[in-house]
Order: sequence, then structure tokens, then C-alpha cells
Amino acid sequence: MGKWSSAARTAVERCRLLAGYTEEPGRITRTYLSQPMRGAHETIAGWLCEAGCAVSIDAVGNLRATKCGADTLVRGRPPGRPLWDHGGPVSSAKGGSGGAHADSGVRPGVRPTFVIGSHLDTVPNAGAFDGILGVVLGVALLEDLAGRALPYAIELIGFSEEEGVRYGVPFIGSRATVGGLDADLIDRISPAIRDFGLDPSRIPDAKLPANVFGYLEFHIEQGPVLEHLGVSLGIVDGIAGQSRLMLHFEGKANHAGTTPMAQRHDALAGAAEWIGAVERIARETPQLVATVGHIVVDPGAGNVIAGAAHVSLDVRQISDEVRQRGVRSILEAAEAITHHRGLVLRIEPWLDQSAVAMDADLTARLGRAAAEEGLPAHSMTSGAGHDAMILAPHFPTAMLFIRSPGGISHHPDEAVNVEDVEAALACGSRFLTDLERDYA
Amino acid sequence: MGKWSSAARTAVERCRLLAGYTEEPGRITRTYLSQPMRGAHETIAGWLCEAGCAVSIDAVGNLRATKCGADTLVRGRPPGRPLWDHGGPVSSAKGGSGGAHADSGVRPGVRPTFVIGSHLDTVPNAGAFDGILGVVLGVALLEDLAGRALPYAIELIGFSEEEGVRYGVPFIGSRATVGGLDADLIDRISPAIRDFGLDPSRIPDAKLPANVFGYLEFHIEQGPVLEHLGVSLGIVDGIAGQSRLMLHFEGKANHAGTTPMAQRHDALAGAAEWIGAVERIARETPQLVATVGHIVVDPGAGNVIAGAAHVSLDVRQISDEVRQRGVRSILEAAEAITHHRGLVLRIEPWLDQSAVAMDADLTARLGRAAAEEGLPAHSMTSGAGHDAMILAPHFPTAMLFIRSPGGISHHPDEAVNVEDVEAALACGSRFLTDLERDYA
Repeated sequence: MGKWSSAARTAVERCRLLAGYTEEPGRITRTYLSQPMRGAHETIAGWLCEAGCAVSIDAVGNLRATKCGADTLVRGRPPGRPLWDHGGPVSSAKGGSGGAHADSGVRPGVRPTFVIGSHLDTVPNAGAFDGILGVVLGVALLEDLAGRALPYAIELIGFSEEEGVRYGVPFIGSRATVGGLDADLIDRISPAIRDFGLDPSRIPDAKLPANVFGYLEFHIEQGPVLEHLGVSLGIVDGIAGQSRLMLHFEGKANHAGTTPMAQRHDALAGAAEWIGAVERIARETPQLVATVGHIVVDPGAGNVIAGAAHVSLDVRQISDEVRQRGVRSILEAAEAITHHRGLVLRIEPWLDQSAVAMDADLTARLGRAAAEEGLPAHSMTSGAGHDAMILAPHFPTAMLFIRSPGGISHHPDEAVNVEDVEAALACGSRFLTDLERDYA
Repeated sequence: MGKWSSAARTAVERCRLLAGYTEEPGRITRTYLSQPMRGAHETIAGWLCEAGCAVSIDAVGNLRATKCGADTLVRGRPPGRPLWDHGGPVSSAKGGSGGAHADSGVRPGVRPTFVIGSHLDTVPNAGAFDGILGVVLGVALLEDLAGRALPYAIELIGFSEEEGVRYGVPFIGSRATVGGLDADLIDRISPAIRDFGLDPSRIPDAKLPANVFGYLEFHIEQGPVLEHLGVSLGIVDGIAGQSRLMLHFEGKANHAGTTPMAQRHDALAGAAEWIGAVERIARETPQLVATVGHIVVDPGAGNVIAGAAHVSLDVRQISDEVRQRGVRSILEAAEAITHHRGLVLRIEPWLDQSAVAMDADLTARLGRAAAEEGLPAHSMTSGAGHDAMILAPHFPTAMLFIRSPGGISHHPDEAVNVEDVEAALACGSRFLTDLERDYA
């Protein structure tokens, strides 16, 4: 894998460079269709055009680059068309027949396509690698393939929106590529799309054609598991399902000085006991993670016993059955605690999202590619949601995690090790080469 | 005690009437030197003048009424002087010699004085009885004594400020009567004093003279103890000392989905475990109350493990030694929990206020008065602070609690039972009569 050391350094440098496209000086903040997103688009498109790809921006702002199959190789984007004025993906590379595929879902004359993708947007005050590293690694792989005729096309997508910051709705970019944006959301985002110089009426053109035969996403782990194991790469077997709820513990606000301990209905004391139960149940259940990250107490004065405590619950596990059983145990604990303390419990479900499995064949191929490169890789579940979760129900999908030093993410200290990036490139390249052998 | 049933009903009606002097229509809010306070002053002064007292407003806005001893009986306030234009207490009743006592601390010619007091101000959105009931009961007792020559003078004080709402500093009214306002605070409150038509340079005149031989405060319990026991009255043996601290639990914010349970440093989970310890320690220690009423979590998002939890601690007990030992146990628990969890603990002391004992003789007299009236009374500690706490280090002080239905206070639902008010009047009257016998 020594051949990738220079490309790995370049990839890290490119992530740092792209971090400069930010809405906030001194911090990395690049939200959906913000002005700095255009700079990121242009910079990445420049690298991709150099690598012989056709590049366009689709109607939700995803950057889309295609290295065509052997029979349709076209270099660069047609001159004279601004990058952000293209409604449809890839079709620009075909020079005029772009209108046809919107109906059929298959681009005539384009070979089966393998998609590599990740996202371009960030949370506020982000690190330099979440999302963008996956795009930059795709660029490096396409650069490596430049000039080579492949028996299949490769499309690289830089999703315009994954974090959900601008509209409170995540995955707008990837959802558009599977036709998953509803009319209400399209109405909400249309003004921003038009402001960015795009045409929301062409969102249907952003849908990937049916001849996509696989999707691969590189992403930093955003957790401490790989570092803990001393392994560069993680092969994702699935993305955990997720339950989100709000629990409202209702007691009786009272004077902290005049109410004896035995006569209290302290909502915060009840919530605190339950937070202990959440932790205990999660620790007893392998792979289950359960988090109370938000709490608001009413009235919230130091000298007043809490009348109400409003707390969040976030539970994730790769097995929906295990997750749902965990949630039930946690809610039973809340019922028991509130009953015992004379509190009232109100449960407000927010989200019950099923786990998403990665494709067994592609995932096995990724594992073999790592092994062939002599790279230890840990098979693991993603606890975080990713664009791969949106693509997986539609196309065979695989995900490769890159170790996160310190497990730090969504923070300016987010980092990657160059040798781990090198490993990812070596593994990814071997994976594509093996695909070539079998998917010709 | 049947003779007091009509006076008790009148007292409750008067509290309801005075609740109409409010800064917020539909709610009871009457803060220090607010415009509605003037209406309360005038109304109460009207009743007191009818009862033969000399009434004035001192320089911090306390309403002060004196029923002089037998040798100095003067009816009503001198005509032509507006109520709120008097700098000194009571001296107006002496018709001109008011300037003299500011130096000596003893009013020439005035017999030893017994003081009855409580406060006129309220918290925002208050009930109708906290504070004001004590003043109104003083009025009823003075009305009962009208025309009778006593061997001692009685001064009734309606303290202008106890709750600390306007300046964040409680007990301004009572502190002025013991010379306990510092220059900084006087500077801060002087504009409001002048706006109210008073003269801040005369604040020293508000100090009670040295010939005060006792202070009695009636107050609603503001807690559930008397109701729980089925008793009308509580005889306060002391006011609990109080420790207030902020504890900062510092862990590591991290992704709720990607961080295994075993690798977390969850500040909220640590704080929750400690809140359980606070409750357990308080329950194990007789009469100790310990409350965590305020908690703020950072970053406070449902899908992020808490990086920090900032929590309040309020601990009260009548024995300073027991309270301080309780605080030490609670802080040791916090040290152990944070150590075990790999969190960092920061402790920020806010207040360490000693307990205040009530005067043994006056308290015993109050108990005897209740017994003579056939009224069961419960000897108890006040967990809340009161003006009595400020007076007690200077004068023999006693406090009588009146049952709070539902233990509710600082709330529009705050209430009193007429029969409990009747009991308080019977007990208070008997107490004054017995004083007459011994303090002539």
C-alpha cells in the first residue's frame, strides 16, 4: 500500500484546504447551499475535471462527477456551462441526451454505474474531516483511475446536505438521489435552491438510475472503537436503528427548606434515578447504547424542589428487536420509579428508525480487499446515521470507517492519521479493481 | 378562642384585599417600593390609625405603627404630615422630639417596646398570605388592644422588603431596623427610595432602639409539616442554617451513537448518580433537607453525551454541625463518583449561613400561650429564612407558624384556613397578655 502515501497526504491537505470554505471565520461551518459551498464545489470540480470526469451540480446541490465506462469516456465538463447551472446529474457528460433518463430511470448508453459518495456540509464549528474526507478519497481514487478504461462507470457524489443543520432535516442530498424528498420539504428548500442558481423543478432528475449496482461510502468513525482496538479501518456491517423519545417526569415544586425529604415529589430526583437505570440497562445489553443528553428542570431554581424534569432518551442497536426490548426495559424502569415516588410520567416518542444492513456481498468484498492489502479491519456497526443508510434500501451498499483519533468528531479537534487514510485508499482501490474483475 | 372567629375572617379578607395592590393585573406581585406598595401602606395605616396607633413609613419604606405604653398614649398620626414623608420611626407619635433618639438608640419617654412584624412584599405571581398575613394579624391584635393602656409599647412593622426580588438581596427592610445595610447596598437602593418620596440619608433612623425587649413574627409555614400532623400552629425553635453550592461535573461530550457505554465519561450520568446520593444522605440524617433544584447540561443535545453538568446543592438543618457534616458527606460522594467515572469535579461554595435560634423564654411563652388556649402546637424548625432571622441576633425573638394547606407557597394557590388564623390570634393575644403580667 506504499503507493498511496502521497495521495493520503494530499487527501488530508485537501480536507484542510476545503475547511477554508466556511461561513464563520476561524471556525468550520458550511451548511446546505451556503455561499462557501460554492467554493467547495468549484475546487473539488477542478480536481475531478483534471481527472477526466464529467462534473455537474444537481438540482439539490449535490456535486456529481462521472468517470464513464470504456465506451462513453468523455473528458471534463462541456465548456461554457457554469457548474451550478445543471439540473440533471451526469447527463451533461452525454452532450444533449440528458432529458431522456428522467422518465426511464436508466441513462441510455451508460454502463452500469458504481457510486462513491459522502457529504460536503458540516455542523457548526465542525472538524475538517467528517463527510468531506469521503469525497476527497473518491477524488483520489478517480485520479488514480484517470485515463484507464473501466468496464463500468463510477459516479462520485458529494452530497450537499447530510447534517440537517439548515432545515433541521438531515440527508436532503442523498434522499434526492433516491427520490426520497417529499413535496413539503421541496417547497421549504426551493427558495435556497433558486438562490444558489439551481432549478428546484429539476429535483426529480437528481434520482440515480436503476443501473447503479453498488454504493461505497468512506467516513471517519466518529467514535473511539477503532482507536481502542489499534486498527485503521472498520468495515461497517450495518447502521444501528435508533429510538428517540422525550420523558416528562412530573412531581411537585416545593420549598427546598420547608419540605421534609419524606414528603417530596422531586421530579429531578426521580429522573436522576431513572438515568442510572438507563445506564445500567444499556451496560447489561451487548452493543446497546442509551443516552440521556438533554434535561430541563422546572422551575430550575436551587432553592425549589423540581416540579418537572424533561429528559431525552436516545437508544441505538443494530438489532431492531434488541433495541426495542431495551427501550421497553428503560420505559418500564421509568414507570416503576415514577410509581414508587408518586410522580407522573409522560412519554413522548420522537423517532423509531429501523436498523439498515449493509450489502453482504459488497461488505465481504471490502473485507477481502483489506485482507489482500494486509490491512487489519474491524467489522463493526455504525451507531451514527450516514448517507449510506439512505442509499442502502435502494442499492447494494458498503461503508468503510477510518479511525478517529481520540474518537473526536463534530469538533475542531477532529483529526485523521495519514496512515489510516493511506490504508483506506489502498483498500478502496483494491475493492474497485476486484469489482472490475467480476462486474465487467 | 371563639372570640377571634370574626377577626380571623376579617384578617383573611384583608389579605385578599391587599393582594389587589399588585404590579401585574391578575397576578400578585408587589416588590420593594413599587407603586402598589404605597396603596398597601395607606390601607394598612388606615386600619392602624383607627386602632389608635401612630403610623409612619421609615426611610427604607417599612410601615411602622406604635401603640404607646400607658404613659405616652397618642391616638393617630399628626395631621398634615403625609404618611411616607417621615424619616424616623414612631417618633412622629411623640410630636416633635423625634430627632433625639437617633443618637442614643433609646427613645426618651417611651416604655420598653415589643415588636411584631412581617413583610409586605411578595415574590412575582405570589399567593395572598406569605408575609402580609403576619402584618394583618398584628393589626388585629392592636385593634383588640385599642384603648387599653399597656405597661409596654407595641410596635408593628410591615417590612418593605424580604423576598429579595427587586435587588436580588433579601431582608432589606429588617436589616435596616438592626443597622445592617452596608453603604454599597444603600447606594444601590437610594434612587428607588427617593422615587418613593423617602430620604435615604435617614436610613440610620430606621434602626430599632435598644429598649426593644422582644420580637414576634407570625408567618405561614410554607411547608407541609403542620398539615401532615393535623395541627394549626407551629412554634419555631430556630431557623435552619443553609449551605448553597454549585457542583460542576466535567466529562467528555461525545457522539451518542458511536461511543460504547464502557468508553463514556458522561457528566450527566455522574451527576444523576450523585443526585441519588444527595437524597440518600439527607434521608439518613434526621431533619436534614438537601435539594438539587437546578441543573444545566452542556451541550444539552439528545444525541450528544453530556460533556458537563452544572448542578445546585441546597442543604439545611437546625444544627450547623449536622448540616456541615451532611455537606461533607455529600461532597465526598461527589468526589467518589467523579473519581470512579473519570470525571472532573469542581465545587463552588455560594453560601454557608449559620442556624439562628429563637429565644428560649419567648418561645416557651408562646408554647404556654397555645396550651392555655387549648391549642395543640408543634415545635419545629423553620427551613425557610424569615425576618426573624435578622432580628434574632439583636433582640429576643419568637416565631409562630400557621398551617399551609397543601404546603403550597409562592404560588397563587397559597391559602390559609380561617380556623388556623383564629388559633394564631388566640395564641398571640394570650402571649401579649402574659407579657403584660411579667414585663410591666
